[in-house]
Amino acid sequence: MRDHGGEWAGILPGQRTELLDFSANISPQGMPAGALDAAVKAICEADRYPDPQCRALRRKLSHVHDIAEEKIVCGNGAADLIWRICRCLQPAKAFVPVPTFTEYEAALDAVGCGITRFPLQADEEFCLNAEAFARSIPEGTGLVFLCNPNNPTGRLLALDDGRRILNACRECGAVLVVDECFLDFTQRPDAHTLAGELECAPNLIILKAFTKTYAMAGLRLGYVLCGDAHLAERLSCEGQPWPVSHPAQAAGAAALDDAGYPVRLRSLIEAERDRMHKALAALNLCVIPGEANFLLFRCADISLGEKLREKGIVLRGCADFPGLGEGWFRTAVRTPAENDRLLAAMGEVLDRG
Amino acid sequence: MRDHGGEWAGILPGQRTELLDFSANISPQGMPAGALDAAVKAICEADRYPDPQCRALRRKLSHVHDIAEEKIVCGNGAADLIWRICRCLQPAKAFVPVPTFTEYEAALDAVGCGITRFPLQADEEFCLNAEAFARSIPEGTGLVFLCNPNNPTGRLLALDDGRRILNACRECGAVLVVDECFLDFTQRPDAHTLAGELECAPNLIILKAFTKTYAMAGLRLGYVLCGDAHLAERLSCEGQPWPVSHPAQAAGAAALDDAGYPVRLRSLIEAERDRMHKALAALNLCVIPGEANFLLFRCADISLGEKLREKGIVLRGCADFPGLGEGWFRTAVRTPAENDRLLAAMGEVLDRG
Repeated sequence: MRDHGGEWAGILPGQRTELLDFSANISPQGMPAGALDAAVKAICEADRYPDPQCRALRRKLSHVHDIAEEKIVCGNGAADLIWRICRCLQPAKAFVPVPTFTEYEAALDAVGCGITRFPLQADEEFCLNAEAFARSIPEGTGLVFLCNPNNPTGRLLALDDGRRILNACRECGAVLVVDECFLDFTQRPDAHTLAGELECAPNLIILKAFTKTYAMAGLRLGYVLCGDAHLAERLSCEGQPWPVSHPAQAAGAAALDDAGYPVRLRSLIEAERDRMHKALAALNLCVIPGEANFLLFRCADISLGEKLREKGIVLRGCADFPGLGEGWFRTAVRTPAENDRLLAAMGEVLDRG
Repeated sequence: MRDHGGEWAGILPGQRTELLDFSANISPQGMPAGALDAAVKAICEADRYPDPQCRALRRKLSHVHDIAEEKIVCGNGAADLIWRICRCLQPAKAFVPVPTFTEYEAALDAVGCGITRFPLQADEEFCLNAEAFARSIPEGTGLVFLCNPNNPTGRLLALDDGRRILNACRECGAVLVVDECFLDFTQRPDAHTLAGELECAPNLIILKAFTKTYAMAGLRLGYVLCGDAHLAERLSCEGQPWPVSHPAQAAGAAALDDAGYPVRLRSLIEAERDRMHKALAALNLCVIPGEANFLLFRCADISLGEKLREKGIVLRGCADFPGLGEGWFRTAVRTPAENDRLLAAMGEVLDRG
């Protein structure tokens, strides 16, 4: 069976409180208080089936994103929707940058799709050249995945670059899935989202998650915004009728009421990411200039992960990411105190080495 | 989009407390107190990813069912597992009795499977003749679904009949999925489960749900017991890595600790089902002798559902079940007080008619 999230390093649930987990990219603020209350209240109503159509949540999302409810589909985490998109579209060919979130290829593989990779270069700090990317989409491609900001590099794509790729997809008849699950952690999400294009781009799907932004990974909640209402309808019928639990729906709807939460989150992440970037660079690590709530870096000591683990701290080793390899690590950006602990431990480990 | 569960009748979440819902077949005892506590506690830890392998829950299920953990796969409700089984096995041909739970055919349709139906007869009170069923499995069938007790008829299949069908499936190379989601509501589940055959039947999958037995439909939790550990491994890799939420895993594990809950449940259901059966028959309705926590009946007044709805009570109209039609209704068996309200309302409605 597969291991993922905090589990990649074999963290068993019983060990969770003992270990400081920098391997998962989740808001360090915890769930918004209102979302927590709503989830607990929903547990008491969980003897009933959840609303299969997530009506209340989709209505709120419709206001937040100024898009018709018919173009919104909720899922059991963003990962559920990645798999549903692949099953629904059944593309013969797909185009994916590497390194990126590995679940895209896993879901494409499962439907027997041929995958062409667009390699991002370490010596270009994994910056995506949109013109080259757009030019490289193979003929007959049915589906293109883009992650913005990209996981695990944290690199952010400019809006014009996103539009360029969207146009190229339209011209070659491909659907473009832009995974914006980490966009709310960046400084100006509104300046980088492709959501404004949905109105005129039936081939565009934007993927979003409550999981990361609102720290509810254990509850499982994601959604897509579709340019094409007909495609949204097909996605909603792909799989079982009740994919989203009642507590997840309730917590998600309540989280959207807390307008201050993402503002505080961005402020915390910006300050701490900059500080961590400098501190990691001062340890002679090669740090990629990411703009999300995590940082990718290379370390000459490939056993860094194991050494930190002995100190009760878990990084995401990135050796299993296509396009990366041994010595690449990803760290989440968390609270000042937690980040201090990580940096101090890394200082000790690397100094000793 | 599809409507299901209580939703089939268009019950919106806001109306749930106002309406008395006999349309969903869920334990009327509510969630076990320990499961409720565990779910609430788990909400507070839901900023972490859930265990993708559901280790703690599978360990407990392994003890309960005396089967290796490797043969157990948990899912986002039993419905999730029905879809995963169909995707994993991708059968060209399947064999399904009608009427039965419609999700089997929905999932088979989605993978392009040809379906042969075995019609159960109203004038035989939908009793399944195992010999005829086994004989009728078409050559080349890859997958057979059986629901025991059957939804919506409530008819229970004897263990020997189940074995006969299992043998026939083995001979023709088909996998047999026995949906035992409602078996815990019957008087002697141990005398009817095919679980004892798992050891020697790699072509057997048994489907179970916490959803119904422990009243946690809103939390989403089901599982399968597989005769073949290799098939279990394939099922666990079919789809996203984190299908089961942390609260669902925690609530399920805690529910298994409450050994008294299913005993009380069976006692309540037996007494109330017998009472309701007699009362419905006394209203000149044709009642099928089901043995689960619901009863199927035919009413000459096909508008019975609408008339009860006006009184705030919701039945499951069964016109959309293949093999049934207008005038067939299914009612859940609930608490004595709730059942009294239903029976009184039906008396008024049918008397007036």
